[in-house]
Amino acid sequence: MVKAHQFQEANKQRFLDELFELLRIPSISADSSYSQEIVHCAESIAENFKKSGLDGVEICETQGNPVVYGEKIIDSSLPTILVYGHYDVQPADPLELWESEPFEPIIKKTELHPDGAIFSRGSADDKGQFFMHVKALESLIKTDSLPCNVKVIIEGEEEIGSVNLEEFLRKNKDKLSCDVVLISDTHIFSNQVPTVTTGLRGLSYVEVTVEGANRDMHSGLYGGAVPNPINILSNMIASLIDENGRITIKGFYDKVEELSPEDRGEINKLPFNEDIFKNSIGLKGTEGEKGYNSLERTSIRPTLDANGIWGGYTGEGAKTVIPSKAHAKISMRLVPNQDPQEITRLFTEHFLSIAPKSVKVTVTPFHGGKAYVLPSSDPGYIAAKKAMEKTFGKETLPYRTGGSIPIVSLFEDILNAKSVLIGFGLDSDAIHSPNEHYGLFNFYKGIETIPYFFQYYTENKTK
Amino acid sequence: MVKAHQFQEANKQRFLDELFELLRIPSISADSSYSQEIVHCAESIAENFKKSGLDGVEICETQGNPVVYGEKIIDSSLPTILVYGHYDVQPADPLELWESEPFEPIIKKTELHPDGAIFSRGSADDKGQFFMHVKALESLIKTDSLPCNVKVIIEGEEEIGSVNLEEFLRKNKDKLSCDVVLISDTHIFSNQVPTVTTGLRGLSYVEVTVEGANRDMHSGLYGGAVPNPINILSNMIASLIDENGRITIKGFYDKVEELSPEDRGEINKLPFNEDIFKNSIGLKGTEGEKGYNSLERTSIRPTLDANGIWGGYTGEGAKTVIPSKAHAKISMRLVPNQDPQEITRLFTEHFLSIAPKSVKVTVTPFHGGKAYVLPSSDPGYIAAKKAMEKTFGKETLPYRTGGSIPIVSLFEDILNAKSVLIGFGLDSDAIHSPNEHYGLFNFYKGIETIPYFFQYYTENKTK
Repeated sequence: MVKAHQFQEANKQRFLDELFELLRIPSISADSSYSQEIVHCAESIAENFKKSGLDGVEICETQGNPVVYGEKIIDSSLPTILVYGHYDVQPADPLELWESEPFEPIIKKTELHPDGAIFSRGSADDKGQFFMHVKALESLIKTDSLPCNVKVIIEGEEEIGSVNLEEFLRKNKDKLSCDVVLISDTHIFSNQVPTVTTGLRGLSYVEVTVEGANRDMHSGLYGGAVPNPINILSNMIASLIDENGRITIKGFYDKVEELSPEDRGEINKLPFNEDIFKNSIGLKGTEGEKGYNSLERTSIRPTLDANGIWGGYTGEGAKTVIPSKAHAKISMRLVPNQDPQEITRLFTEHFLSIAPKSVKVTVTPFHGGKAYVLPSSDPGYIAAKKAMEKTFGKETLPYRTGGSIPIVSLFEDILNAKSVLIGFGLDSDAIHSPNEHYGLFNFYKGIETIPYFFQYYTENKTK
Repeated sequence: MVKAHQFQEANKQRFLDELFELLRIPSISADSSYSQEIVHCAESIAENFKKSGLDGVEICETQGNPVVYGEKIIDSSLPTILVYGHYDVQPADPLELWESEPFEPIIKKTELHPDGAIFSRGSADDKGQFFMHVKALESLIKTDSLPCNVKVIIEGEEEIGSVNLEEFLRKNKDKLSCDVVLISDTHIFSNQVPTVTTGLRGLSYVEVTVEGANRDMHSGLYGGAVPNPINILSNMIASLIDENGRITIKGFYDKVEELSPEDRGEINKLPFNEDIFKNSIGLKGTEGEKGYNSLERTSIRPTLDANGIWGGYTGEGAKTVIPSKAHAKISMRLVPNQDPQEITRLFTEHFLSIAPKSVKVTVTPFHGGKAYVLPSSDPGYIAAKKAMEKTFGKETLPYRTGGSIPIVSLFEDILNAKSVLIGFGLDSDAIHSPNEHYGLFNFYKGIETIPYFFQYYTENKTK
C-alpha cells in the first residue's frame, strides 16, 4: 500500500487532469440530443481503463447507452470485487444559476472545502467518484500491489433509472460474478466524520385520483351540495397520519425492523445537530413521528409524504370552479423487512376504504423498491470501516439515509452480492443542482482509501 | 298590452332575423383581436335602438368597450325602469366541440326545446336575452302603450368582469337615475316552472400558501423530519369543515340569515329532484351541511370550497420530492348579511391560527362580493312574479342561486336601485360552453312577459 500511495502522490495532477477531460464531456442521458457525447464519454473511459492497466476492456452495447467494462483477474482463488459507477450526468438546467460553465471544470474554495472543490456537472455524481476507483486501481496495478480480482462496470443510464442495467446483469451474470459490489455514489456525514452508508430506505409510490361530478362545476351554483374532490382528497391525505406522526394504514408497521438499543446508539453517535439541520434548509421547525429524533426519522423509520398534488384552477386570480377531479402523488419510504408491493397493497386497500361514497377513487401504483441494510457484521462493512479509519484517522460510523438506490437490489437479486456504499461526497455538493462540486480533499481521500478496502476485504475473506 | 302583443306576433320573424344579425358578430371581449367586432356590435345595437323607437341613442365611450345607451322618457312623474344587458360574449373555444358554427346561428330542436332553440355563442348569454327587452320596448313604443319611462344600457365587458362599468355608472349617475333595474341574464327553473331569481350568494376568495424548507427536498433524505407543505395544507383544509359539513371558522355563521319557515317553504316548492340533480352531473352521491337538502345547500347556506390546489411534482411518473411550497385557492359562498371583507378577515385569522409552527403560511385575498336578496315584499319582485304568472299561466316561485353577479351590487351602491333578475334561459343552455343555445319559446315568452312587468310595476308604484 505504501508504494501505491507514493504512486498516487506522484500522479496527483495527472489524475485531476484526466478527470477534467471526462467532466468536459456533457454525457447527459435524459436528453437524446447528447447521444454522441454519451458514446464519446464511454470511449474516453475505455481508453482510460486501458491506460490504467485494466484488461478485457470493452464497450458493451445495450438497448440504450453502453456499459464500459474492464477487469484485472490475478488469481481465481482470491476474492473478486465488482466496482460500479455511472458516467451519465443530470442535465445542467437551469443554466442561469451556474456561476461557472457546467462542462468546463474549475477549482474554487468554499467554506466546507478550504482546499478547493471541482465545480462541474458530474464532479460528485458520479464521474469524480467512479474515477477514484479507476485511479486507485491504476496505483495498485502499476505498483504490483493489487491484492484481489477486480471487475469494473460504468454504466450510462443511472440518471434515467438504469433502465437497461437489469438485462445487462442477467446476460453477463457469470462474467460479473463477484463477492461484493463496491459503489461510490453516496456521501459521508462530513469530512470530519467519515461514514459508510449501511442503510437505504425503500419506496412505495402511488398516484391517487378522486373524482366527483363528471365535469367541472360552478361553485356558486353547485357549491355546498356536490362533493368537492379537492376537499375530499385533503381529508383523505390528512387522515393518513395521526397526531403522533404515525401512519394510520392498517398493518403498515407490522414488519418494521426495530433496531436494537446498540444499533440505535451507534446511529446516534453521529454529531447530528437539529439547529444546523433546520438552518441549512431554512426551516422554522421539524415535524415527524413522536419518540424519534430527526436523524432517526430520516433513516430508520418509515414515512408517508405527498410528493405532488393538483386539481382545479391553478392560474392567476380567482375562478370559482369545483373540479371534477383532484390528484396526488403519495410515496412511502420503507425500512428493512417492509415489502414495497405489500405496502402498496395495504395503502390501496386503506385508501379505498376511507373514500366517501359520493366519489370515485383510484390508486395507480408506480415502481417501488426494497429497503437495503448492510449488517455491521458484513465483511464488506468491516473492511470499509477499517479502510476509512485508516486514512481519515477517525472513527467511522454507520450511516443510514433515505434515498433508495434501485441498482443495489439488482446486484443482490441477480449477482447475489451485497453492495458496500463507500461514497466520499458531501450532502452539500449540490448534485442534480446548479454548481455541483466535489472536494479535492474528498477526491484524493477516496483514491487513498479504496486500496485499503481491497486489502482489508481480501484479508478478511481469505483468513 | 293587447296591441303590443299583436305587434309582437306580427313581427316574430323579423325580431328573430334581427337577433341573428347580432349573433353573427363575434363580439368576444376577452380577446383584443376582436375589438373591431366589439365596435361593430355596439353600432349595430345603436341602430336597432333607433329603429325600435328609443330616443337619445348614444354609443358611450369608456376606458374599455363602449356602452350603448337609449331611453324613452314619457312623463317624469312616472316610474323609471333601467334595463341592463351585455353584448359581449365568451370566446367560442373549444371550437371542435361545436356541432355548428358558433357565430352562424341555426335553429335546432332538443328534448327540452321541442319548438326549437337558437344555437349560437351569445344566444342565451346575453344577446338573446337583452334583445327581448329591445323588442318588447319596440312593441310598446310602436303601439303607444309604454306605461312608464325606460332607460337601457347594454355594456360590452360583462364577460371580463365589467371592469369599466363602475366608473360609467358614477359618471352618469344622474342620467341613469331610476326606480329599479331590470336584468335578463339568469335562468328560470324550467319552462314548466317559471321563477324569479331572488337571491345570489356572495363570495370571499383567497389564495393560501404553505411554505416549509427554502427549497424542494429529496423525500428519501429528508422525509419524516421536515414539514411537508402538501400534507400540512391538506390537514389545514380538512380541518375547515367538520363531520357535520359545518365550517369551523370562528364567527363564520354569526350573521348568517336564517330563513323564516314560510320563506324556506317557498323555496322548497320548487320541484327539485335529488336523483335528477345527481344524474345530470354523473354524481354517485351528494355531500353537504347536515340539516339541509341540496337545494338549500346551494342557495340559502354558505359554503367553503377549495377551487384549486397545487404543489410538488405533477408530471408523469414518480418524483420523490418534498416541495418547498404548496398552494390552494379557497372560496366561500356567502348568504345575505355576511360581509365578504369580514369573512375574509375571519378566514385569514383562523387559517393562520391553525398553522403548525414549522411552516410559514400566507393568505392572499382576492376581490369578493356581497350576497344579494330581493325580498318577497319588493315591488319589483311582485311585478315580475305577476307578469310571469300572467304569460306562463303558472305559479311563479322565488329562486335563489349561488353565482354572484357583481353588477347588482354596483346598481345598489351607486344608483340606489334594486335589481330584478328576470332571466328566461335554462340552466341547460350551455352558456360559456360549446353549443350554447336559447329556446325560441323562451325568447318569445320573454318579449311577451316584459311589457307586463312594466305595466304591473308602474301600477304598483303609482297607486
